Amino acid sequence: MVWDQVWIDINIATMDPSISGDYGVIPQAAIAVKDGKIAWVGPRNELPEFDVLATPVYRGKGGWITPGLIDAHTHLVFAGHRANEFEQRLQGASYQDIARAGGGIISTVNACRDADEAELFELGRQRLNALAREGVTTVEIKSGYGLNTATELKLLRVARELGEHHHIDVNTTFLGAHAIPPEYQNDVDGYVDLVINDMLPAVIAEGLADAVDVFCENIAFNLEQTERVLSAAKQAGLQIKLHAEQLSNMGGSALAASLGAKSVDHIEFLDEAGVKAISESGTCATLLPGAFYFLRETQLPPIDLLRQYNVPMVIASDFNPGSSPICSTLLMLNMACTLFRLTPEEALRGVTVNAAKALGLEHRVGSITVGKQADFCLWDINTPAQLAYAYGVNPCLNVVKNGLVVALPR
Amino acid sequence: MVWDQVWIDINIATMDPSISGDYGVIPQAAIAVKDGKIAWVGPRNELPEFDVLATPVYRGKGGWITPGLIDAHTHLVFAGHRANEFEQRLQGASYQDIARAGGGIISTVNACRDADEAELFELGRQRLNALAREGVTTVEIKSGYGLNTATELKLLRVARELGEHHHIDVNTTFLGAHAIPPEYQNDVDGYVDLVINDMLPAVIAEGLADAVDVFCENIAFNLEQTERVLSAAKQAGLQIKLHAEQLSNMGGSALAASLGAKSVDHIEFLDEAGVKAISESGTCATLLPGAFYFLRETQLPPIDLLRQYNVPMVIASDFNPGSSPICSTLLMLNMACTLFRLTPEEALRGVTVNAAKALGLEHRVGSITVGKQADFCLWDINTPAQLAYAYGVNPCLNVVKNGLVVALPR
Ligand SMILES: [Zn+2]
Ligand SMILES: [Zn+2]
Repeated sequence: MVWDQVWIDINIATMDPSISGDYGVIPQAAIAVKDGKIAWVGPRNELPEFDVLATPVYRGKGGWITPGLIDAHTHLVFAGHRANEFEQRLQGASYQDIARAGGGIISTVNACRDADEAELFELGRQRLNALAREGVTTVEIKSGYGLNTATELKLLRVARELGEHHHIDVNTTFLGAHAIPPEYQNDVDGYVDLVINDMLPAVIAEGLADAVDVFCENIAFNLEQTERVLSAAKQAGLQIKLHAEQLSNMGGSALAASLGAKSVDHIEFLDEAGVKAISESGTCATLLPGAFYFLRETQLPPIDLLRQYNVPMVIASDFNPGSSPICSTLLMLNMACTLFRLTPEEALRGVTVNAAKALGLEHRVGSITVGKQADFCLWDINTPAQLAYAYGVNPCLNVVKNGLVVALPR
Repeated sequence: MVWDQVWIDINIATMDPSISGDYGVIPQAAIAVKDGKIAWVGPRNELPEFDVLATPVYRGKGGWITPGLIDAHTHLVFAGHRANEFEQRLQGASYQDIARAGGGIISTVNACRDADEAELFELGRQRLNALAREGVTTVEIKSGYGLNTATELKLLRVARELGEHHHIDVNTTFLGAHAIPPEYQNDVDGYVDLVINDMLPAVIAEGLADAVDVFCENIAFNLEQTERVLSAAKQAGLQIKLHAEQLSNMGGSALAASLGAKSVDHIEFLDEAGVKAISESGTCATLLPGAFYFLRETQLPPIDLLRQYNVPMVIASDFNPGSSPICSTLLMLNMACTLFRLTPEEALRGVTVNAAKALGLEHRVGSITVGKQADFCLWDINTPAQLAYAYGVNPCLNVVKNGLVVALPR
């Protein structure tokens, strides 16, 4: 056997559903890498003989290997911050006061419209570095803070550039229908026309998006507007997903399911009919505990129903300046367990194998499986549950991305 | 003027109560350091002339300086972890199941009794490094996972050694009366005798503790037992503090106040009479949002009463393997605001000037004040509220400890 790299003295949480038992564990295991892919995985004592002089052998000192983590829902390219309104609200200001003072999403939109690509790139790079240090190897990034064609394109271009210049793979989502821009407050359908007829073709022409998303909610876009955007995206061959059922049960998830969406996200208010619908369409349920925490929500997503209907649960940071200013995928594991009562294994599936499925990347990443990209992490832990249980002392020792050992950013 | 070091191009949140306005801000400021102390602080344009050739000048690029952060309540020297019981509980196991399987505090006690000093030191060093990266310069560490004389002494010795070998200053607390060890389940008074007559004299003889603490609760030590331990500690000239009113209103805080305690900690169930008592004794209220979060508590500490009675509020991590496995002081700022509705300024006071008071160190640290230790941080932020608002991208650019610029651990 001629391999590029071999890992031994490791335990593996493969997260491969075809390997029975929690986490798809292979104790006392080995991994061989060739051409950026996983070429062999199994028990150490079954590892075929290989040329030990020609092959770098990495020893994991008894630590655990997991797939590289995947954060399948972020808004991480944005300028500015919203610390002032955070502070004002805690000092007793009302939402109206804050809106009058120029706060809310419009402040982020204005900051993004003003920022140049270099500034947005540098901010995004710092955020990807923070995620990279905790073992993240794939991140989804949405636009949605431009709300005009030029700025939506700018945000997506920056997201694409980040993917090209960072070892983290970036999956991009066009979310022009994130909020109603000030210019269209009294003409939401007119804005939806702009999204479909102006923005979307430009996004497609430049190849800037892997998927299209909409914020379907009574404070944003209604079902009919959502259907128009998602249908146009689907027709153009893009993947679709939806911010749905966060504040009320609008029926967005069932609509998304009927269109073959990859995921519905938030879904605190999803009912059994909606869970059944997404289960039948193979749509993932993306749970966002950071927003639940930061907004002090009390309505829990329908976890038991999702389990009952075998809906793949995804956990993501939803990192954004308004409702989840927490740029940490690992902390989301703890919040998923603490706040949503997921098991550590469910939480870890939510940032590996299920997150890959939500991005349509399940054939390439998300588990330690022969033929997939060699994207994996070595952790200084005794049991995979530690990844969800504790936070603060970063247990990530090494990251391998596309078969290369990454020098983790400081 | 001859100084060792000058900082310019900075804004300062001095947290000095004698400087009016939130955070005690000095915009466009300068700091001069001499002999490890703050020698001058004020507006840049009032900075006296100094020998620019002989003095290193650091430029903060318009960032913000705050005092070094102080985590005034941790249990960070311990061996083992409790990920297994975390997982078991989420899989539906009861507390009895877990206790039968050897879980709970006793598993940490057993791990600490088995561990040698070198192992405990290395674990503690990694945890201090995590705190150091986010700007922490002083940490309190409690014993309490030994519950026999030899192990309590071992834990305190390790805490002292950590303080000697790390740039973070360590303040130690003897918490022999943390829980009832298995050997004394039917003789709690006998264990209290051991704490007072055997452990405490040994702790004092070796100079291992700055303070003494007790867990006063119906599942731990009652009021009378608490009073015996704290009185003995006071008589020996040690500071006292108390884990009080976490699960019920036992009257521990009023007792602690009557004995002149530096702080009462947790205090979710403290009533107005108790708040009045600690206000009159100058006792700090140490709030622990990490434990509140992790235990999914619903009873909020009496924040409004604490404000009304001008009780200094302290925010700390309570980092420990059972009820707050989150080793991050910065994240506690966000949790204090999000969960307890403190303002960002109150939260920052809680890890600076008020935390110093809780440790009896208010004359040396906790604010940017002439004569205090030159312990401060430079942050890549536009407003101090950002420290509490966001989490994940570490904004800590530099730490100065005792007047030396620290090479932050990776
Ligand atoms: Zn979102
Ligand atoms: Zn404690």
